[in-house]
Amino acid sequence: MTQELTVQLADQKREKPDQANLGFGRIFTDHMFMMDYTEGKGWHDARITPYQPITLDPSAMVFHYGQTVFEGMKAYLTKEGRVFLFRPEKNMERLNRSNDRLCIPQIDGDFVIEGLKQLIKVDQEWIPTAEGTSLYIRPFIIATEPFLGVAPSKNYIFMAIMSPVGLYYKEGIAPVKILVENEFVRAVKGGTGEAKTGGNYASSLKGQEVAAQKNYSQVLWLDGVEKKYIEEVGSMNVFFKIDGEVVTPALNGSILHGVTRDSVIQLLKHWNVPVAERRVSIDEIAEAYRNGKLEEAFGTGTAAVISPIGEFLWGEEKMVLNGGQTGELSKRIYDTITGIQKGAEKDEFGWITEVPVSELK
Amino acid sequence: MTQELTVQLADQKREKPDQANLGFGRIFTDHMFMMDYTEGKGWHDARITPYQPITLDPSAMVFHYGQTVFEGMKAYLTKEGRVFLFRPEKNMERLNRSNDRLCIPQIDGDFVIEGLKQLIKVDQEWIPTAEGTSLYIRPFIIATEPFLGVAPSKNYIFMAIMSPVGLYYKEGIAPVKILVENEFVRAVKGGTGEAKTGGNYASSLKGQEVAAQKNYSQVLWLDGVEKKYIEEVGSMNVFFKIDGEVVTPALNGSILHGVTRDSVIQLLKHWNVPVAERRVSIDEIAEAYRNGKLEEAFGTGTAAVISPIGEFLWGEEKMVLNGGQTGELSKRIYDTITGIQKGAEKDEFGWITEVPVSELK
Repeated sequence: MTQELTVQLADQKREKPDQANLGFGRIFTDHMFMMDYTEGKGWHDARITPYQPITLDPSAMVFHYGQTVFEGMKAYLTKEGRVFLFRPEKNMERLNRSNDRLCIPQIDGDFVIEGLKQLIKVDQEWIPTAEGTSLYIRPFIIATEPFLGVAPSKNYIFMAIMSPVGLYYKEGIAPVKILVENEFVRAVKGGTGEAKTGGNYASSLKGQEVAAQKNYSQVLWLDGVEKKYIEEVGSMNVFFKIDGEVVTPALNGSILHGVTRDSVIQLLKHWNVPVAERRVSIDEIAEAYRNGKLEEAFGTGTAAVISPIGEFLWGEEKMVLNGGQTGELSKRIYDTITGIQKGAEKDEFGWITEVPVSELK
Repeated sequence: MTQELTVQLADQKREKPDQANLGFGRIFTDHMFMMDYTEGKGWHDARITPYQPITLDPSAMVFHYGQTVFEGMKAYLTKEGRVFLFRPEKNMERLNRSNDRLCIPQIDGDFVIEGLKQLIKVDQEWIPTAEGTSLYIRPFIIATEPFLGVAPSKNYIFMAIMSPVGLYYKEGIAPVKILVENEFVRAVKGGTGEAKTGGNYASSLKGQEVAAQKNYSQVLWLDGVEKKYIEEVGSMNVFFKIDGEVVTPALNGSILHGVTRDSVIQLLKHWNVPVAERRVSIDEIAEAYRNGKLEEAFGTGTAAVISPIGEFLWGEEKMVLNGGQTGELSKRIYDTITGIQKGAEKDEFGWITEVPVSELK
């Protein structure tokens, strides 16, 4: 480790939530991991502290110019009481790619993973045990310099907070209905689409709101240039199974480099299921649907893992997939990845990083 | 006023800064204006309080999903000791347009202007008197719900803070050198480009950094679709004088509705200077330059008012305008608008809102 990590424990532990009603991202553990960045000094004062509010000047740049990045990861508890992280090094790589795009200084990924392991160890009792639950980890960086000029901040805070979570969608692995968005754009080549930064999510809210009014739970985003090529679904990457082949939009500069996306591609190759990363137009999808060749579609992301798509609405055209049921391949991928994450399936890909904790019941 | 406004004065007044070195946005006045939004209750608890840090949960949505909007305004002190705001109702209109795009609840513009007047009155001694100075006002709204789900927040804080400022560019009205950006994109139609929201500014930092390394002080942004049509310069709108006619990119959905932009257009019409809002390609500008018809170019914004452009670099082509000097029309516009703002020129357009304060010095 390049820095010292200090640990200050909370005086009191808060009551653990009911595991049947965890929801997503509303309940937080007793501690958090923090460090500060000062220009000329680098990242310093890495520390685990009691979970607590942060105090910033109203002119702190994060409130004005959106200079933020974040990651989403999960810690899983196995039946044997071991604690697993899923490909955390990929999250650190992506965090640094996001940092580069947002002019935020690079972090030492190995050090941050060590800090996260310490944090998980301290709050290990918070990892939920019920089926489908996990401990969601949210590392993020915010610009804190008290200055209203438009320029990269000279000060930052890195934080990681943790939340015991149930399934991301209340419906569980049940298929969701998706509205193809023709007006609003999430991101464009040359913009920040492949960075995990606040602005992309802020930009997505309006389309999402319009979709919700029509009773669709997510939006399928098309490219910002031609409004023709598929980019992402909600805040997930998207896959289609067409006539036996799985296709997903290629990483083109405006699509997030999903860790689950990459894992799904590896898994499909391992299974000898044909898989292609390329441009996919909405016309191609509609055409495949009309010809009865659109077999399955699903989103991928850390929060939901696999989110099967039961229906697309594109203008006036409604496409119902697989009778609105979860497809066979979607289910197989979901079971395999969550199985590896939970230690029920063999990790043939070296995806698991174990967190050394004292044995949990 | 639809709400009560409470006032809590600071126990101590801080020392006023040296007016010769105000810079921009680093020094703040003794008080701020705040109000809270709670779903089901609307905006409430409008208050003027001592300037102070704000305390938020680390899961507050603003830190993660960029749901923020802001405005930039200025209060000016006239020679007679009167205090003027410049078209504040336009800022309120734009704030609500930004709110709409970002799924943030609408504010009552008239009420906020009343609150700002009260705030200015309380901190009237902070309005600087030296040439070229003013009191910059930064209203902004941040999403504060402690929740990691991607959805519009159910809670917000509105704040307005104020900073006595000198000229935005150290160079004053001296012309700046501009790099035409061919790689990075600030915004695209369907995105958030016409909203004043953090993500647009975060997105602009990287291009700005690249420009600074090449010794250019701002970036000229091209459209995200064809990388051909001119959008904005830095965080300003942009105008060109070509063969006697002034042209500026039309509001197309990805360009900010600048208050200064609108004022410049009105002023030019009043002067019978031909002015057109239309698509302007970078090729057209280069062509006009080569033919000796590109007479002037300038950016417009609240912070800088008018920022003359002395040079463009587009790939290998360097275009030096007007011998690198401030153009005659740029200077005339600058003098007129700043003259109206400072009460030295007659306000023929109804642009001034007076802030009732006790007579200053």
